[in-house]
Amino acid sequence: MRRVPTEPASWLTASFLCAACASAPSGSTDGISRAEAEGVLAAQAACWNRGDLRGFVQTYWQGPDLTFLGESGLTRGAADLLARYEAGYPDSAARGRLEFTVLEFRPLASGTALLLGTYHIARAQPSRGVFTLVLQRREGAVRIVHDHSTEARDTRAR
Amino acid sequence: MRRVPTEPASWLTASFLCAACASAPSGSTDGISRAEAEGVLAAQAACWNRGDLRGFVQTYWQGPDLTFLGESGLTRGAADLLARYEAGYPDSAARGRLEFTVLEFRPLASGTALLLGTYHIARAQPSRGVFTLVLQRREGAVRIVHDHSTEARDTRAR
Repeated sequence: MRRVPTEPASWLTASFLCAACASAPSGSTDGISRAEAEGVLAAQAACWNRGDLRGFVQTYWQGPDLTFLGESGLTRGAADLLARYEAGYPDSAARGRLEFTVLEFRPLASGTALLLGTYHIARAQPSRGVFTLVLQRREGAVRIVHDHSTEARDTRAR
Repeated sequence: MRRVPTEPASWLTASFLCAACASAPSGSTDGISRAEAEGVLAAQAACWNRGDLRGFVQTYWQGPDLTFLGESGLTRGAADLLARYEAGYPDSAARGRLEFTVLEFRPLASGTALLLGTYHIARAQPSRGVFTLVLQRREGAVRIVHDHSTEARDTRAR
């Protein structure tokens, strides 16, 4: 398992990561590299840890065929996903500090890859769990097109 | 949402479903149809509901790059997955009766598709949850290459 860097050296780096994932094309080839996949996670953590949930959600595909599956069911589209995150993580105390660990990266097909990992949110009541991300290169950038996240049982709110 | 048929008309049908998913090629085209994806679920339910966990696990890719992600973490390979199911569902009382509902089917790439759904296990203490399946056509048959399953909070053992 490899620790994904979630401690940008500076605000500049964090801004770059958010911006990079939000808009910049990720290479010219069709295949998705592990470095690109980990870059998406790094961008997510950087945005989350600076309180930029909009930037965080920019790492997801912005079209209607984005899906997020959690124990509460299926969320479709980036707008509903942002609303879900804003409702669930209204302030810095709730957001805490997010870190990811990669369990597995696996290319599935041309321009499509699978990224499995764990997340940890350091806060008063820590939260951790596992996630499945399906990544695709679309419009030149690597985006999350499906996210299934599961909170570990022992950290669930009762 | 569409109910996946989980009531084979006869043992013959159940046997056919298990056998079909275990070995028979699923069409000659590279694309995966929704009917083929639902056929994998129907085969899983048929095998499960007749107590055939080995047949159930035959619906997964048998190579080392099979992954199953649950709250307990990552399981790799069909052998470990079978051991996990045999330990968790040792008898018919634990297995109950399994039914699936499809939430979404989405082709991702040539020979690769995403299938999202819910499961329900009818038993003394019912269990239900959501799942993400990544399906690929390999060696002519459609197989599950990644499964992420999440039990709903209110049905979890405490």
